[in-house]
Amino acid sequence: MPRLHRIVETALYVDDLERARTFYEDQLGLEPLIKTGTLFAFDVGAASVLLLFQRGASLATQNSAGGSIPPHDGSGPLHIAFAIDAEEFDAWESRLDQFGIAVEGRMEWPRGGRSLYFRDPDGHLLELVTPGVWRNY
Amino acid sequence: MPRLHRIVETALYVDDLERARTFYEDQLGLEPLIKTGTLFAFDVGAASVLLLFQRGASLATQNSAGGSIPPHDGSGPLHIAFAIDAEEFDAWESRLDQFGIAVEGRMEWPRGGRSLYFRDPDGHLLELVTPGVWRNY
Repeated sequence: MPRLHRIVETALYVDDLERARTFYEDQLGLEPLIKTGTLFAFDVGAASVLLLFQRGASLATQNSAGGSIPPHDGSGPLHIAFAIDAEEFDAWESRLDQFGIAVEGRMEWPRGGRSLYFRDPDGHLLELVTPGVWRNY
Repeated sequence: MPRLHRIVETALYVDDLERARTFYEDQLGLEPLIKTGTLFAFDVGAASVLLLFQRGASLATQNSAGGSIPPHDGSGPLHIAFAIDAEEFDAWESRLDQFGIAVEGRMEWPRGGRSLYFRDPDGHLLELVTPGVWRNY
């Protein structure tokens, strides 16, 4: 049976791409991959791609020479978690504080991992989590 | 500066957890990590975790002995992409067909990667993509 190796792209939908770019690129330090009028993509540790779509702009099928991408979109405060090193937990907390990003929640997991929760400018719930949560992380 | 290593958890919001479980576990072959009354989590290739939340059930802060998880939720047909091997592209296409899962779109990317697009039972747009799309994939 064929396998799925990982989630390679995760999409969030935002109201202001430039505002989101400032947050994800300048404050969280993600590397830009592409920037179009309706989509900014960022490299996350050479392992994942974060896609930020202008809300409403991906509701039509996108046709190109390469094929077609069906419609998608979303609303509500979505949730994603970024992997960080345990040794960098304090440095991340300082960095969030430096940019005035409020920590809304914390968790200490039974396996030893720790999480910090905060919001992006569109209200999406982001988590920074150290190893020791799941069987596979 | 501290680093983000990857997106380790991606959340989708579904109307029927058991219906979604059948799709992700039995048809796509993901390994279950936990199942509660409002959250099913799946391992994706020992690299990512897919979280399926009962829609509306994560709108209240969750307090526990370990700390607190702030509210989140979502609606709309969200989008995520799973990494597959190029050698398994045809096997995946056959498997989708075997379960009557319609392919809604296809892409051939300039760097050589190929994508198949289809829907989960809640309308989320899923993509299976082979290497050769991004600088990091």
